[in-house]
Amino acid sequence: MSDASALDALIQSLRRLPGVGIKSAQRMAFHLLQHDRAAAQTLARALLDATEHVHHCERCHTFTQDVVCATCLDTRRDHTKLCVVETPADQSALERTGAYRGLYFVLMGKLSPLDGIGPHDLGLKKLFERACDGIVQEVILATNFTAEGEATAYVISEGLRAKGLQPTRLARGVPVGSELEYVDLGTIAHALVDRR
Amino acid sequence: MSDASALDALIQSLRRLPGVGIKSAQRMAFHLLQHDRAAAQTLARALLDATEHVHHCERCHTFTQDVVCATCLDTRRDHTKLCVVETPADQSALERTGAYRGLYFVLMGKLSPLDGIGPHDLGLKKLFERACDGIVQEVILATNFTAEGEATAYVISEGLRAKGLQPTRLARGVPVGSELEYVDLGTIAHALVDRR
Repeated sequence: MSDASALDALIQSLRRLPGVGIKSAQRMAFHLLQHDRAAAQTLARALLDATEHVHHCERCHTFTQDVVCATCLDTRRDHTKLCVVETPADQSALERTGAYRGLYFVLMGKLSPLDGIGPHDLGLKKLFERACDGIVQEVILATNFTAEGEATAYVISEGLRAKGLQPTRLARGVPVGSELEYVDLGTIAHALVDRR
Repeated sequence: MSDASALDALIQSLRRLPGVGIKSAQRMAFHLLQHDRAAAQTLARALLDATEHVHHCERCHTFTQDVVCATCLDTRRDHTKLCVVETPADQSALERTGAYRGLYFVLMGKLSPLDGIGPHDLGLKKLFERACDGIVQEVILATNFTAEGEATAYVISEGLRAKGLQPTRLARGVPVGSELEYVDLGTIAHALVDRR
C-alpha cells in the first residue's frame, strides 16, 4: 500500500473527523473504495456544497443557507420568547419535543477558557442586544447541564440581570421514567430544592 | 434547521460511512462546518481523488494507483511465496511484523453467501492460476480466524489441493504475552493440537 498516496491521503482526511481513529479511517476508506464509490462521491459533493453554502443565520447564528433562517422568519412562532442553546443539535432536540414555539439563539459552542472560547466568540454582545430589543420578553437558558454549560448559563444570566432582565433556566430534576434508586444524588438534591 | 438542505445532505452522506449513526453524523457535520471547513474541503478532494485514481493491482488486487502495485514489482521480495489475505489492512498488519518478505494476494473480502459474495467475486480463479504459474512454491492462507475467514481458507485450500498444491495456514495458538487462565478454551485446544 506504500504507493497508494491517494488512499493514504483519504485515510488521513477521514481521521480529522471527530471520533475517528486510524482503524476506523482505514475501514471507512476501504469500505468506500471497495463497496460504495458512489457514496464517496456523494459525500465529496455534499462537503463542498455545505462548506460553500451553509453559513450562520444573521439573527440566531444557527446554520442556514439563507441570510436569516426559516425559524427566525416564521411569523407563527412566539417572537417574545428567546431560547439560548449551545448547538443546532440541542435546538433540534427542543424542536422535537413540540413544547416550545418561540425563537432561538444558538451559541455555536460554550464558554471554554481552556480552548480560548470567550464571550466574544459566542456572540454574547449580540444576544444581549437582542434580549433588549423590546420584543423579547423572556430569555430561557437551555445550555447543557455540564460544568461548561452551567458556566455559560451563569455568565449570560449575569449579563442579562445587569440589563434588568430576569432569564429563566430549564428545570433540573429527575428524568421521566427513572427510578429514584438509580438517579444520581446531585440530581435528586436539585429536584428536592426545585420541588413545586 | 429545516431550510439547511445542504447541511441535511451532508449529514445523510456522512451516515453512509460504516459505523456512523445519526448522532455521529450530526457531530461530524457540526464540527466540520463550525471549526474545520479546511478539513471538510481536504476530505472532499481526497474522496474525489481516491475514487478517481485508486483501483486494484492487476496481480494482487490490493489498492494502488498504478497498474501493478509497488509490492508486486519489488524484485527484492521472495516471489516464490504468496500470502492470501482478506483486506489491505490485513496485508498492512503482516507487513508491519517484518516477518514476511514474499508477495500477497488480497481477496478484498471473504466468502459470504448471505451477502452474495462467492468465489468469483474474490478472484479465486486468478489466484489458482497464479499459484500454478511455476514461480510460486508456497501459498500461505492468512485469512481471518473467523467463521467466514475459515470457510474462505477451506475453499481456497481445497481448490489448491485439487491442483496438487499443499497450502499452509497461519498457526493458531496462544497469543504472545497472554496467561493461559484468561485464554479461551478453543484457542488452548488448538495450541495443544498444533504443539511443536
